[in-house]
Amino acid sequence: MNKIAVVLLSGGADSATALACARKDGFVPYALTIDYGQRHRVELEMAKRQAAAQKVSKHLVMSIDLRAIGRSALTDEIPVPSGRGADEISHGIPVTYVPARNTIFLSVALGWAESLGTGDIYIGVNALDYSGYPDCRPEYIEAFERMARLATKMGVENESSIKVHAPLINLTKGEIFKLGKELGVDFSITSSCYNPTPDGLACGVCDSCSIRLKGFSNAGLVDPLKYPASK
Amino acid sequence: MNKIAVVLLSGGADSATALACARKDGFVPYALTIDYGQRHRVELEMAKRQAAAQKVSKHLVMSIDLRAIGRSALTDEIPVPSGRGADEISHGIPVTYVPARNTIFLSVALGWAESLGTGDIYIGVNALDYSGYPDCRPEYIEAFERMARLATKMGVENESSIKVHAPLINLTKGEIFKLGKELGVDFSITSSCYNPTPDGLACGVCDSCSIRLKGFSNAGLVDPLKYPASK
Repeated sequence: MNKIAVVLLSGGADSATALACARKDGFVPYALTIDYGQRHRVELEMAKRQAAAQKVSKHLVMSIDLRAIGRSALTDEIPVPSGRGADEISHGIPVTYVPARNTIFLSVALGWAESLGTGDIYIGVNALDYSGYPDCRPEYIEAFERMARLATKMGVENESSIKVHAPLINLTKGEIFKLGKELGVDFSITSSCYNPTPDGLACGVCDSCSIRLKGFSNAGLVDPLKYPASK
Repeated sequence: MNKIAVVLLSGGADSATALACARKDGFVPYALTIDYGQRHRVELEMAKRQAAAQKVSKHLVMSIDLRAIGRSALTDEIPVPSGRGADEISHGIPVTYVPARNTIFLSVALGWAESLGTGDIYIGVNALDYSGYPDCRPEYIEAFERMARLATKMGVENESSIKVHAPLINLTKGEIFKLGKELGVDFSITSSCYNPTPDGLACGVCDSCSIRLKGFSNAGLVDPLKYPASK
């Protein structure tokens, strides 16, 4: 019997690829999506469709309303930056940073994993083309893993049983799309946009869209999403 | 102006004392209670009353339904052990352990703290008379703090700005009650019971009640709570 892994699935291209990596690595994937009150609700729909397309054993959508703890352009009425182009995106930490988001998500994944009797967790963070978020760096993932080994019954009994897999962490966005393509990921059912149109189309100009479009271009691939400007 | 601290407030005696410590240390306390679907709902009522009694600046009750990730006697229909007496309580990890609970709670506290512009977090964990939970030990708290410094914008900018205060961690239960008493904590509005009666009375026989009663006795104090057996 194959081992279970909990995979954080946001509905974006990176987490869809991380899910495909977990399957390639031989794990039975259990997908976890957090409805944190994100303004870009289309993500949640894409997470459901992606989970179904990749035939996860279970898809759990858990609500944690981070609007209550606020202060991010992704949850509050703070304008999302746009039109900067991938090369102009500042390497400072942007207003789309959600305080402690990956820590909260990984913590819930850890709890669910332990309940399921596994210590394997997948997260699609990426340190190279990331938007300047501190919780996407390898040193952060390592520190989380170390903490998780001390936090849990499973980790106390067997330290090496807890493993946070971040298969995309050292890949460029172009490499991620190439890898996803090889693993059969359907990128038409992913959403990366911070500021989608009311009918759920990606804007094509926010930081996340800019990084995505540059990534597809660098990979020599065509983004299957429709953008308003390309209509 | 005094600095804000986020204090995790469960409604139990330890977190009520941790809140009093934050106030004594000169912080403006913001209390955070997680409604995680605990069977002992009286805790949430006590948290509200305790927050009001200690005049916190804000009391945020956030819902994170840990029943969805299950497997604990505190959230599921697993029997809570009782009648063992404080000295007989096994030092193994008991069925009342909730996977990754403190990690999830501290993560949300971290996110709220950063939004509020502070890195000070208080948690009432206690390693000496604890029930065998891995996430109540000093090495766990240190690992969380180290991870938090790498996870956040605030921590990246100034490592020492993030501090997880665990003022009770090396105290016995008796010492905690003495300290709380000195700081004016009203223990009649705390609830520690894992298995309260339908009208919210503490059972007096679960591990948590046993530890509490022994603590009051060791401190030479009388528990102001009414127990069914003492009616």
